[in-house]
Amino acid sequence: MAQQSVVNQYAPFTTQTVMEFVKTLSIFDHPNKLIVKEIGDGNLNLVFQLVELETNRSIIVKQALPYAKVVGESWPLSLNRAKIESESLRMTARVVPNLVPHVLHTDHELACTVMEDLSDHHILRTELISNQHYPLLAQHIGYYVAQTSFATSDFALHPFVKKELVQKFTNPDLCKITEDLVFTDPFFDHPTNDFPHELRHAVETIWADEDLLTEVGLLKFQFLTHAEALLHGDLHTGSIFVTEQSTKVIDPEFAFFGPIGFDLGQFFANIILNTLSKLATTDRQAIVSDLLRAMEQTWITFAQEFTKLWDESNHEIYTNVPGILPRFLLKVWTDAIGFAGCEIIRRTIGLAHVADLDTIEDFHIQIEIKERALQLGADLIKSRTHLYSLGHFIQRIKGALRS
Amino acid sequence: MAQQSVVNQYAPFTTQTVMEFVKTLSIFDHPNKLIVKEIGDGNLNLVFQLVELETNRSIIVKQALPYAKVVGESWPLSLNRAKIESESLRMTARVVPNLVPHVLHTDHELACTVMEDLSDHHILRTELISNQHYPLLAQHIGYYVAQTSFATSDFALHPFVKKELVQKFTNPDLCKITEDLVFTDPFFDHPTNDFPHELRHAVETIWADEDLLTEVGLLKFQFLTHAEALLHGDLHTGSIFVTEQSTKVIDPEFAFFGPIGFDLGQFFANIILNTLSKLATTDRQAIVSDLLRAMEQTWITFAQEFTKLWDESNHEIYTNVPGILPRFLLKVWTDAIGFAGCEIIRRTIGLAHVADLDTIEDFHIQIEIKERALQLGADLIKSRTHLYSLGHFIQRIKGALRS
Repeated sequence: MAQQSVVNQYAPFTTQTVMEFVKTLSIFDHPNKLIVKEIGDGNLNLVFQLVELETNRSIIVKQALPYAKVVGESWPLSLNRAKIESESLRMTARVVPNLVPHVLHTDHELACTVMEDLSDHHILRTELISNQHYPLLAQHIGYYVAQTSFATSDFALHPFVKKELVQKFTNPDLCKITEDLVFTDPFFDHPTNDFPHELRHAVETIWADEDLLTEVGLLKFQFLTHAEALLHGDLHTGSIFVTEQSTKVIDPEFAFFGPIGFDLGQFFANIILNTLSKLATTDRQAIVSDLLRAMEQTWITFAQEFTKLWDESNHEIYTNVPGILPRFLLKVWTDAIGFAGCEIIRRTIGLAHVADLDTIEDFHIQIEIKERALQLGADLIKSRTHLYSLGHFIQRIKGALRS
Repeated sequence: MAQQSVVNQYAPFTTQTVMEFVKTLSIFDHPNKLIVKEIGDGNLNLVFQLVELETNRSIIVKQALPYAKVVGESWPLSLNRAKIESESLRMTARVVPNLVPHVLHTDHELACTVMEDLSDHHILRTELISNQHYPLLAQHIGYYVAQTSFATSDFALHPFVKKELVQKFTNPDLCKITEDLVFTDPFFDHPTNDFPHELRHAVETIWADEDLLTEVGLLKFQFLTHAEALLHGDLHTGSIFVTEQSTKVIDPEFAFFGPIGFDLGQFFANIILNTLSKLATTDRQAIVSDLLRAMEQTWITFAQEFTKLWDESNHEIYTNVPGILPRFLLKVWTDAIGFAGCEIIRRTIGLAHVADLDTIEDFHIQIEIKERALQLGADLIKSRTHLYSLGHFIQRIKGALRS
């Protein structure tokens, strides 16, 4: 009876109860001989790996916790995000089945998703920090964003279907985290911010820059109101698993209908942060060139794929009007640069940092690079409507690397 | 038993069944002596007036039909719009109780709303056609849009509340009517269009104007994606009841979360259409001046009230950043002019015309005025980002009146 109640009613899994749960699913031929490990390092979830001893087959069980660990149990989070994540993975798999983990089972009551184990993959952030280069990454991410955003936009869906999906993927708790931690707290003197004393002058420059705050406020409002397509919502380099040949975008629990430029912007920002961190290394030129080319290639692939889908689609009559797509792509581009700027700033001084910067050993250099990150972030946000081309954008980043 | 089933299960009311329904509501002291009339002239609903003989008190019962009469029973429409309408009236009454009909009762099962009878008011469109001037109208409408849009925006609401309302006021059927009849059909050779042969050349000029179609396509996309505030959604001069002292905005069944400029744009367009129709009359100068002033006054009141609410609000920290409000108001203004242009064109050549133009007796003059309407509509859409001020906008309309 105890076992039944574990399986039917939400409680955080233990290694014992997760094994009992998996036994009920007929996934393994030998479910009595499983090895279970909790391998989560996230802030919001439990992640278990279960390996079948006889075959060495393995799966992952990811379960949402009812609170955010990062700030203790005091930040409650709806368990509904587990449903959002599994539904988003299933939606996404329709257009990019090879770029997301395969979902084997979901249980909304237990707030968990059972999926393919990707332990043969590596977390992109860690790989970039150790100077690994993944030549297919940019094309995969550009393709991922083009396919998933076009397929869930008004350009591809009947308006009834689109509106139903917007309702279904309403994600207030997780969006609030972004609204606060990306768009608000870092731009004001807020207790969630986290930066060393030595950075205070640069941070106060941000806080005092009314032109910057105006642009960030408008970007926040776009994030709140522009329901263009189903986004991943948290597409940083820690949400991407890679091997030489394969890229997997994981953890879409922040998924919601928002501005398409947001996913691209977060990805760009995290590549830029890694690029900036290379200033701390000698002989960095080749690595930096690779990273800048990866950003260019991501955008080029995105724009090409989006255009191909647009040209092939005959759902919305306005996709036949030649002037619209360039204008729409310009909006996505401009939004992406603005959102990238916000992400760069918040990852430098907000609650959730990136290891790319924080692991720079020489503290003096770390501070100097963080100052450059803040300046570049502010510059991208304020200049975004003038940076019409990839070239302008890359020049601006090169400027930040040089100056 | 027959009476019970009438009251509990949806069927279009007859004068008999609506009386039986009202008897169950304890609204009247003498519910056995009611006079009932069906007074609807709308396309989507039944409207009954019930008068209590002894007191002369009267009420309105408005019931949604499961199809759009305008195109026969073949255009099915969700009865849920009755719920949208009554919930919208209740939401709106919180901030502008004097500018909307008072709701006495709603029955979602029967898709009906029981409300205050406004028979002492006149339909604004008819009044404008017969040259009546309502000096408080502009202030009332500017105030209505400012109050209702601010109160339901992210500037005033907690994001959880806003997102819940966006879901609740998802209105696919009625939005589809606008998406098709305002933003799509009139701009292509579509069977729902309706215009005389003599206008064909001017209409084909619209259809062939790729710059125009680009802008309309982008405006349609904004309508589909910019969930800024709860709109009325159909704020033309037939949705406004007036007396000398009183203005009542009725029929919000198209309510949904969209771009704030849409309501203002539809109102402007219908005033402009009336203004253009005055070209058919002699001694029109004073009337035209009044109408242009009414538009100016509507915007001025809207902007002043919205600013006041913005300054008083301390919900969203970004309302303290001085640069944001002017930028946001400019977006609303630009959107309003673009949406006004779409409404002017669709009311001239689309499925649903306005009496202002169609009742011009001299057919030659009617055609000439309709040509001017099409040109002005196209001009407003294409120039909207350059018409920075009220003055520019009014000059453009005066140009259309003169040319």
